Amino acid sequence: MTDDYFMQQALAEARKALAVDEIPIGAVVVFEKKIIGRGYNQTEQLRDVTAHAEMLALTAAANHLGNKYLADCTLYVTIEPCVMCAGASYWAQLKAVVFGADELKVGFRRHGQLLHPRTQVRGGVLAEECAALMRDFFSLKRK
Amino acid sequence: MTDDYFMQQALAEARKALAVDEIPIGAVVVFEKKIIGRGYNQTEQLRDVTAHAEMLALTAAANHLGNKYLADCTLYVTIEPCVMCAGASYWAQLKAVVFGADELKVGFRRHGQLLHPRTQVRGGVLAEECAALMRDFFSLKRK
Repeated sequence: MTDDYFMQQALAEARKALAVDEIPIGAVVVFEKKIIGRGYNQTEQLRDVTAHAEMLALTAAANHLGNKYLADCTLYVTIEPCVMCAGASYWAQLKAVVFGADELKVGFRRHGQLLHPRTQVRGGVLAEECAALMRDFFSLKRK
Repeated sequence: MTDDYFMQQALAEARKALAVDEIPIGAVVVFEKKIIGRGYNQTEQLRDVTAHAEMLALTAAANHLGNKYLADCTLYVTIEPCVMCAGASYWAQLKAVVFGADELKVGFRRHGQLLHPRTQVRGGVLAEECAALMRDFFSLKRK
């Protein structure tokens, strides 16, 4: 039960997004080594900017626990979260946020400290695989 | 149809939150001088940190228009939005964000430019009324 294992699960979610022509980003929330929330980007299907993979996974996890605070949970997401998802992670007081590939343009890190002080951050987990999914998606779109 | 008018509508939403013992923050989204989305803070009822007034109002407005972009819409919210809600507003590419009272601790402005460059910001609309609702709520909680 390593970071790689759970990132593979987030990648499986990202592939669900790809299958429905959404930007392929996926996320899972892990509590006591079990996945308690899953999500993939559904902003086009739901026509809703708030339907990012992370938001859906956090909501699912909170529903599962019956608790809006996810202090013992880790969010795995294939791409560095955006400001909105970092803000949601702040409120959830996550134990950790683990992401795959960097997102230099709209990733949260360029805005400084947006996560809760208690939240650990690890990036670069299966980064190449996570980034490749995005590259393939956008290169198909440009054709 | 002034800022004050729509902020009164956001205040009406905030009072709905107060009535169910939620932190009293309310929001409306306005398009062509009509309210097309409403929301009040429901984080306790839904046990979900993403259920802020602004998020619910943005989702409702996008559902109404069938469009995730709200470029001709203005978000009215009683308290300065947090980072999460600013991030959602960024993605929605709102025309304007109008808020009531400042939120110095968890408001988005302390983190610099989080909104879309096209989005205008106006603060201080019915600020005293918006802040008073919050003060009353927290002073009752402390008793």
